[in-house]
Amino acid sequence: MLPSMDTILHDHCRLDPAKPIIVGVSGGPDSLCLMSVLRQAGYRLIVAHFNHKLRPEADIEANNVEQMAARFGLASVIEHADVRAYAEKEGLSLEDAARALRYRFLFQRARQQNAQAVAVGHTADDQVETVLMHFLRGAGLTGLKGMAYRTVLPTFDPEIPIVRPLLDVWREDTILYCATQGLRPHHDPSNQSVNFLRNRLRHLLIPTLETYNPRFREAVLRTAQSLAADHEILTTAADSAWGTCVVQESPGLIIFDTTALAGLAVGLRRNLVRRALEHIHPEAEVTYALLERASAFLADASQRQVDLMRGVRLLREADQIYVVSPEATLPFDRWPQIPEGVESLPLALPERLQLSGSWVLTAEKWNIPALAWEQIQENEDPFQVWLDADSIEGELFLRPRQEGDRFEPLGMGGHTQKLSDFFTNEKLAQRARDRWPLLCVGEKIAWIPGYQPAHSFRVTQSSRRILYFILTKVK
Amino acid sequence: MLPSMDTILHDHCRLDPAKPIIVGVSGGPDSLCLMSVLRQAGYRLIVAHFNHKLRPEADIEANNVEQMAARFGLASVIEHADVRAYAEKEGLSLEDAARALRYRFLFQRARQQNAQAVAVGHTADDQVETVLMHFLRGAGLTGLKGMAYRTVLPTFDPEIPIVRPLLDVWREDTILYCATQGLRPHHDPSNQSVNFLRNRLRHLLIPTLETYNPRFREAVLRTAQSLAADHEILTTAADSAWGTCVVQESPGLIIFDTTALAGLAVGLRRNLVRRALEHIHPEAEVTYALLERASAFLADASQRQVDLMRGVRLLREADQIYVVSPEATLPFDRWPQIPEGVESLPLALPERLQLSGSWVLTAEKWNIPALAWEQIQENEDPFQVWLDADSIEGELFLRPRQEGDRFEPLGMGGHTQKLSDFFTNEKLAQRARDRWPLLCVGEKIAWIPGYQPAHSFRVTQSSRRILYFILTKVK
Repeated sequence: MLPSMDTILHDHCRLDPAKPIIVGVSGGPDSLCLMSVLRQAGYRLIVAHFNHKLRPEADIEANNVEQMAARFGLASVIEHADVRAYAEKEGLSLEDAARALRYRFLFQRARQQNAQAVAVGHTADDQVETVLMHFLRGAGLTGLKGMAYRTVLPTFDPEIPIVRPLLDVWREDTILYCATQGLRPHHDPSNQSVNFLRNRLRHLLIPTLETYNPRFREAVLRTAQSLAADHEILTTAADSAWGTCVVQESPGLIIFDTTALAGLAVGLRRNLVRRALEHIHPEAEVTYALLERASAFLADASQRQVDLMRGVRLLREADQIYVVSPEATLPFDRWPQIPEGVESLPLALPERLQLSGSWVLTAEKWNIPALAWEQIQENEDPFQVWLDADSIEGELFLRPRQEGDRFEPLGMGGHTQKLSDFFTNEKLAQRARDRWPLLCVGEKIAWIPGYQPAHSFRVTQSSRRILYFILTKVK
Repeated sequence: MLPSMDTILHDHCRLDPAKPIIVGVSGGPDSLCLMSVLRQAGYRLIVAHFNHKLRPEADIEANNVEQMAARFGLASVIEHADVRAYAEKEGLSLEDAARALRYRFLFQRARQQNAQAVAVGHTADDQVETVLMHFLRGAGLTGLKGMAYRTVLPTFDPEIPIVRPLLDVWREDTILYCATQGLRPHHDPSNQSVNFLRNRLRHLLIPTLETYNPRFREAVLRTAQSLAADHEILTTAADSAWGTCVVQESPGLIIFDTTALAGLAVGLRRNLVRRALEHIHPEAEVTYALLERASAFLADASQRQVDLMRGVRLLREADQIYVVSPEATLPFDRWPQIPEGVESLPLALPERLQLSGSWVLTAEKWNIPALAWEQIQENEDPFQVWLDADSIEGELFLRPRQEGDRFEPLGMGGHTQKLSDFFTNEKLAQRARDRWPLLCVGEKIAWIPGYQPAHSFRVTQSSRRILYFILTKVK
């Protein structure tokens, strides 16, 4: 009557006969069937019953479960809590409060007992109702694939999985099973439960849909199975794309490489953004509308930043996209910065100077150019510069920017422009500007590392004595 | 009122303003809206109306469409056919017959006019109904993703696509659009159309579902969009897997490499089987149940073959899986075979003999062994053998098997076994056995190419004169 459970228990739920399992038993036919099936398959069980205290019979039912477990020679743990009070306190619906307390109890016991898993009696009917609920709400693949035989619920435990061996078994078959096994279930409490939407689906909507397709429930179950397989492929593809696109992964912060991200299919890009958001807020509901906004942001390179949810932002900087929580500190490591609080760093050549992060400035004086002028012209590293020593009168020092700073760009024949305009033209991130190192002589900026030397201090073919500076990021 | 159509027409439908488009116009608000939108966007249109002749007003409506096209300065083509007669003749439902004739007409005209696409007025409501219909029936991702902005329908034309620019526009908005543009649509004929299931969905089921979620239609539209993006990722993954797993692709036949196939995720494997079946029967409906049977076959290496649909079989041979139509000839190329009709091929050494396919037998006589005995012992090519010439009395010849053939395997000290048992033990495919070449001397089999020499004819350390045979596949 039941499908062969061995493959499901062993391959899909990946249960180990040697380690204990916490089995959640309400006393209804689903969970009694589950308890009996697991026991007959030789697994080590601890029966756990959560008394919601929502109905008058609740205490009697808790007693019954305890006695049934004892009759099977199984240990049992019973707990109760005031669901109504908890719901009011937390501002939850009765149904959400009941689920939260019940799962918390099951996973706490699983931890205490060193259990390999929490097993629950969700049936094929529960699966159909879940998928239908997601369909009505407008879910993506993740919702429409329904529940899995085995999955981790990070809200309750980061490691111990929940397993659902009866996902392929119809509720009706669990009732028949109980009858043939001499088990006396309560009238399934979930039917009178607080979950009103589920009950409307079960008793009204699904029968209506069965007038369109008498095998509607089987159809949805098949859909869920087929989508679960597709979801697995997608997960593999997304894992690989994550590896390619993520530059940095730390609490509250994911950094993507913009070019790598742009090379992905739309769906995969959306998928990575979803992952990043879930990384930052594991419990947040990542809606489709939210992903749409994120996609629009990614597609429009002129946008600098967008707020997505609860202060989580997407931020574009140079060739990177940051997904960042309000608490996270953005990394400064990719830029040279003058340490906070330092207003001036005098240089006595030769010099080796440690800046913030892992940046180091090295400076040398060359009386005879060690490089031909042509080679200097061909310099491709903007963090390396040669200056004409004879044009420099006064002490050299590094400092952050000051109000009113101006700079004399190369090739502008002595004309200056506002430093802030220069930074804006070069699209340097705002937050990098305040502590950006500037090589100065007196009032003048001689070199903006990462960009260019000032016109007056450049090396020319007639330069005799040369100063050499290089900023490097030490790994 | 309508979403910005430029991106949709240009990016999603990939329409070229320079080339003509056949636009299917029923005269209802959807198709009039489409005609007007395309015209205003500057595309070159030919209006095509198919008169189903199913309702009394049909002729008047056809006239109206012609006049409206003329008023817009557009060419139009009208055609009619007896849908009812066609349906009866072909044993189709009225709705399937109407669709088949209408699409055939549209694509024929598109061909004649060198059109880039056939444009039709499917709206967001049609999309929701389509997805809902698939959901009720139990579809996978391919069905649930709904219709695409642009797609090829191989049944009607192998190249010219159908485009659906209004997939994001609600039917209601096309009605409003027509009103503001002074267009006078017919009362949408599809409402009284032959498509009863669609009408039940539209007028009964969707309003019911909207009591569960007032924004149900938007939700389904979003789901379809999200699944379409996922489907794109899957297609990319499947393309790549197809490249890895498919050994041969010819009409009526796909050959997979078993090991490569086994390395894939379940869903991807199922996906490749679906593709293979669609390659063989482009119009077949590949059901989930069918893919389940195929998956079960793939998972069970002991199964040799399974019939899937319309005589299409899955066949396991050595390290390959064949998906094969009843008409296809299975390749023999991988095996040496005695040509059909030939009963004996005498050998006069040295010899070079052409067998079926591209196999060639080369035979030589060595009076002094050219190889040390140890080297002969280390032979790893089963299609190469050395025999002891002095053990061979009589003429050598190749022949196919005969009733009652026995063989003396190596190391069995002269004992023989039935050739058929030998083949079975070695798991040689049945269809390869009848014409398998056997090297014989008188009544005895001296060598089974691909396997081993007979015990009596083997080379030993005391062999003086040696015969050398090799079968090679010439590219």
